[in-house]
Parts: sequence; C-alpha cells; structure tokens
Amino acid sequence: MTDTYNRSGASPPKSKTGVPEDRSSSAGSKIVEPTYEGDFVLDGSLPLECGHSLVCPTLHYAVYGRLNAARDNAVLICHALSGSALVGSWWPEIFAPGAVLSLEHDFVICINMLGSCYGSTGPGAVNPETGQSYGPDFPLVSVRDNVRAQARLLDSLGIRRLRLVLGASIGGMQALDWTILYPDRMERALVIGVTPLSAMGLALNHLQRQAILHDPEWSGGRYLPQRPPRRGLALARQIGMISYKSAPLFDERFGRNPNRTGEDPWAADGKCGGLTGGRFDIAGYLDYQGQRFIERFDANAYLAILRAMDTWDPLRGYASPQEAFGRIEARLSFVGISSDWLFPAEEVRRFAEAILQAGARVDYREMKSDHGHDAFLAEQAELVRLLQ
Amino acid sequence: MTDTYNRSGASPPKSKTGVPEDRSSSAGSKIVEPTYEGDFVLDGSLPLECGHSLVCPTLHYAVYGRLNAARDNAVLICHALSGSALVGSWWPEIFAPGAVLSLEHDFVICINMLGSCYGSTGPGAVNPETGQSYGPDFPLVSVRDNVRAQARLLDSLGIRRLRLVLGASIGGMQALDWTILYPDRMERALVIGVTPLSAMGLALNHLQRQAILHDPEWSGGRYLPQRPPRRGLALARQIGMISYKSAPLFDERFGRNPNRTGEDPWAADGKCGGLTGGRFDIAGYLDYQGQRFIERFDANAYLAILRAMDTWDPLRGYASPQEAFGRIEARLSFVGISSDWLFPAEEVRRFAEAILQAGARVDYREMKSDHGHDAFLAEQAELVRLLQ
Repeated sequence: MTDTYNRSGASPPKSKTGVPEDRSSSAGSKIVEPTYEGDFVLDGSLPLECGHSLVCPTLHYAVYGRLNAARDNAVLICHALSGSALVGSWWPEIFAPGAVLSLEHDFVICINMLGSCYGSTGPGAVNPETGQSYGPDFPLVSVRDNVRAQARLLDSLGIRRLRLVLGASIGGMQALDWTILYPDRMERALVIGVTPLSAMGLALNHLQRQAILHDPEWSGGRYLPQRPPRRGLALARQIGMISYKSAPLFDERFGRNPNRTGEDPWAADGKCGGLTGGRFDIAGYLDYQGQRFIERFDANAYLAILRAMDTWDPLRGYASPQEAFGRIEARLSFVGISSDWLFPAEEVRRFAEAILQAGARVDYREMKSDHGHDAFLAEQAELVRLLQ
Repeated sequence: MTDTYNRSGASPPKSKTGVPEDRSSSAGSKIVEPTYEGDFVLDGSLPLECGHSLVCPTLHYAVYGRLNAARDNAVLICHALSGSALVGSWWPEIFAPGAVLSLEHDFVICINMLGSCYGSTGPGAVNPETGQSYGPDFPLVSVRDNVRAQARLLDSLGIRRLRLVLGASIGGMQALDWTILYPDRMERALVIGVTPLSAMGLALNHLQRQAILHDPEWSGGRYLPQRPPRRGLALARQIGMISYKSAPLFDERFGRNPNRTGEDPWAADGKCGGLTGGRFDIAGYLDYQGQRFIERFDANAYLAILRAMDTWDPLRGYASPQEAFGRIEARLSFVGISSDWLFPAEEVRRFAEAILQAGARVDYREMKSDHGHDAFLAEQAELVRLLQ
C-alpha cells in the first residue's frame, strides 16, 4: 500500500516526494533507524493450524529504543501485507515525540510475517527438510500461526507482557489475535482499519490471486527468482491499489486527465492499434505502482499473505463470540477510516461493538480521511493525532 | 452484467433460475421475441471522430412491435457493454404491460453497438479494404460515432423522430449523446446509472484491459477465433463484476461461506499447493461468471467497447456545458441507483443538475436497490415501477 507517486519525467501537481520504498508517503518525515535488526530462528518446529509445521522457521525482526530492566516497556507493531520489520521506515510518524510511542521510554519490536519476502521464512526460503525452496509448497501460515511464532520470539527476549500491541490491516488482525490467544500478555491493543474480510474483500483478493496464477511465468509457483511472474504481480498490485484508495481521492488527484507523460486517450491508435489509446492519468499511476511493486515484492509471498488474510476469523475454533472475545483482558481500541471501502468504518465500528458486547473493554474512533484504507500510511500525522 | 448464478451441481440458496444468456436475472420473466431481427449496411463510409472511418459497416438490429403509419411511435433502446440488439431477451420486463413501453403502441428498436460481437461490425469483422478481420486495427468507434450510425439506420426506416430514447450504463451514454447531437429527433430521453467515467471507473476499465492484454493468447489482438485469450477475458469480466454489484449484496449472498461445491478455504493444500486453498463462495461465483462470459463474448470486442466508454465525454468539442447541454430539447430523465459504486447515484444526480443548469428540462429519480450498477438488469420490475 502506498501513496507515493513521483514518476520520473512527470510533474505531479498533488503528489508527494518519493521515497525509495513506496511503503510510506510521509513527505518530509525522517526514517527512524532501528536499534537492532536481526533474525530469530525458532528452536524445533512451529506447528500450524493447517496441520503442517514449519521446521526451525526464521523470524526477521527489528527493534527500536531500549528494553528496560523490568522488561515491561515493550510495544509490538504488526505490519500490513507488503510491509517489513522496519516499521521506522514505513510508519515513521508513529515515533513522533509526544505521539503514540516514545523511543525514550518504549522498546518497539516489529516482526516480519511468516510468508513474507522480507527476511522471515516464506515461499522463497529453503525448506530444511528438502533442501529446496518451498515455492508453492509453502503451507498455509495463518494469522494465529504468526502470532504464536511472535510469542516465542518475545519469550526469547524475556518479554512476558507488552505495554501495547498494534497494527493496521492484516497487522490489526494479528493485534486482535494477540489479545485472544495471550490475554494476559498485554495492557492495551490498537486495531486499525480491519475486520474479517467481507465478501467484497475476498473477491478483491481472489482477483489478485488470479492475476498472478494466470501469468505463465508463475509456472505453478516454481519460477526462477530471475524470471518471476512480473505482469501478474503488477496487475495484482494494481487491483489491490484501487481497494486501498478511495474514489474521491482518485477524482481529486487524477480525474479524467490524460496521463501526465503526455499520452492521448483519444488517439486513433495506441500501442496495440485502435483497441488501445493513450492512457488516462489514473492508468499511468496504477501502472507505475505495479512496476514499483514488482521491484520489491515476491509473487508467492503475496499469495501466502493473501491466504492468511482471507482465512482470518478470530472466532474460528471457538463456540461463540463470548468464548473468543470474552478472553480479552487488554484495553482494546479500534480505528475505522471514513473513506475505507475495503474495510468500511461502519463495519469496523460494528465489529468493535460485537467485541464490546462479549465483555471486553473496547473503544472505537473514526479517522476522517479521503485516502481510503491507505490512510494509516498516507496520513500518519492525522492518525497519531487521533490516537493521542 | 449479470445476476444469474446457477452453477451445475450447486444448490444456490439465494440465486435465481438461470437463463441461457446471463444478461438478465429476471427469474420467471419471459423473453420477448422481436418482430424482426436483421442487418443494416451503411451506404459508403462512416467517418469516425478519431479521423479514421469504417467502410460500409453493418448494424445488427432488432425491432419489437409495429411502426405506425405516421412513423411517430418509435422508441430506441441502447444496450450496455455486453448486451445485444435482443433487448427482449436481456430486458424483458421493460415490455411489461402498463410499464414504460407498450408493444401495442410502440415500435421498439435496439441496435447492436459497433465494436461488439453480436452482429454489428466489430474487431472480428472483415475489413472490406483489406479482406482481413480488423483485429487490433479496429479503430476507436466512440459513443458519438455509434449514435451517428444509429441515426442513419433510423433514416433508412423513415423514422425522423423518436418518442423516447433510453439506455443504462454505456446505453445511457448513447441516449444522452442522442439528445445533444439530434435535439429535434426525440421527445423524451431516459438515462440510467451513468455519468462520464470517474477516475475509479477509468481505473477499473484499465485493470480489465490489462487482464486481457497480459494474456499471452491475446497475441497482440491477432488471436485465432478458436484460441482466444480466455483467461484474460474471464479475469476482466470478474473485475467488471465486482464493480457491477455491491458489497452488501455480496455479503448477503456469499458472506464468508466456503464455495458451495464443497471446497475448503482452510484446506492445507489447494490446486497449487499451500499457497492456494479451496475457494470461498464469492470466488466460485466470480469464476463461474468469468467462464460464462468467455462462452459468449469476444476479447477484442470487449476492448473496443471499454474504449468507447472510457473516452465518452459529452462536452468534448463544445466550448462550455451550456453550448453542449443547451442544445437539448428532449424532456430528460436521469435515474441513479442507490448502491451503484461504479456510477454513484450522487454523481448521477449532480450530472443531471449540471444539465438542468445548462437550460435543459431534466428530472432525477433514485432507484433504491442493493444490487449495485446491475440493478437495471437485476431488478427490472423495480426500475419499471420507478419509471411509471
């Protein structure tokens, strides 16, 4: 998810300054460097909900600030689909002085999800049992599986209890699962812009998955690293992008303008004859986002995390909402984003309400933004204000 | 656009009875047979806005009822993207007694759009100048070009003035262009669920276009009829489908249910290993719609009509809205659909308001429906009630 749009040769009237990675749009906000970034290898195997297990998986993580002697100042941040452990790079404003976190007092940990391509074990990693990379055999690693693995990493750091666990999108799914699976291990939890995926959300993920699976270069998931399914992944990203943004934002930024590179949508002939013309600006933007994404993300990792997102259901395995949500001890805050149509604010509010009714301490706040789901990245300063 | 969902082997609890063609969802409503269905070949060439021309293009059309002696009882219905001239098959309830039309009194004409694959000249037709099929060389035939061609067909029938011209979606674009291009040739016009495409609409069309262009079988548009870009067209249709329907409808019909054929989204392994599982019901529905569509539609025709839709701007070539909309003499009615997110009702209302302010006689009505853009097909009886 990204807000950055600064194509070379273009003069974007309303876009923000580009950053090398398009995970943040916070023009001017400086990247926060981690105190430490490294790998934790789980001892033995990680049993998975699907029945399989991962043998000695690696969790790549980053920490910011210092753990105090009492080990009671830890905060866990869970990243979204295409994020990494480097939360200081994609969410720098959350560290703003006087904001949600304080690097003077807090010890912030962010752990790359299993299935990802940013250091933790994913489809591109070597399966120690076969000596080959997992590829399409990478098992379903659910959100819960991730949370259980994260708990083992915290154990190894001697962190029994978190001051706060927070995340947006699939990061929020992890944060909520933390409160249910380990109710006595955190004081507060903050869940931003998320509910279990609706039918429309599942539809959007299905379309993205199809885009990758239809690319002949995908080769059943056994593509060579130098020959990945670029077009399929780029199209998947483009489909994702329309769900991360909002129609009003697109209208304001792009409207019906021809692509800023000077193409003519009314041209008699485009690259493919009369059936295509020059692009509109929104099309140029989406193509650009697709191209940026394939430089930094892996198609199988994308599929792995889509699946974790699709299958997330915090009630699964519990007899009732009361049995699941009644476990929660943390003070829980939800944030809905007014223009989010992937996870509509009203749905987030209702989800929070259902958890409240099951007996948990829950509050709900709404972030007013035209940025859609992406607002948690695109308008970090606003988010921070709301959370104070 | 379709509402039909009756996959073989499935027991759809909330779906309606299938019809052979998935353009209509009107369970129980009988197809209305045309009085005549045939071809009209334009004499000479049709000059196009893009600068090219079509030599002796064919317009395939269907008529219902009888033209009276005064030739003043004609109604023109303009079809949507994947529709055909057979309006009695995809919009039968519009003919319901006491409804908008009366087959006793009206003479209804529906003309297949140029660019389509249902009988009028499109990319699959033979270019008389080359003896080869147009393929990707089929020129941009705009909505206006279509309207000008339609006027020549009406001329040939001796129809000077229409009682009514109406259409939904790109059919509504044609209806409005009729009122601007030929202000003295109709009494009334009815434009349903349409405005010029917003940036989000252009984005959705771009994604659909990419899905087709990325399919290696597309072969630069020169695919053989027996080897079309099936997967690309199916994915394009699926992307279209999410924009024709609404999130509440998807939630009500499919929710987070596993696919009704018995697949398990939580299965350890799907067809492609652990990266895919069984489908959710919404995914099964979209796949089904994609498969149905490739049996009946052509990829290049789809691209041709997407382009006509993208480039539609009734103000293009006019100095001001006054100059364009001020030409309108017809009594003009707009209908917005409450749950339409491709052409939001509020945008339709504003569009109608702008035309009103330019001096035309305009009214606006809103159709309450959960069916999204597709409501004009899915809830025909409701539409008819609203129009009475």
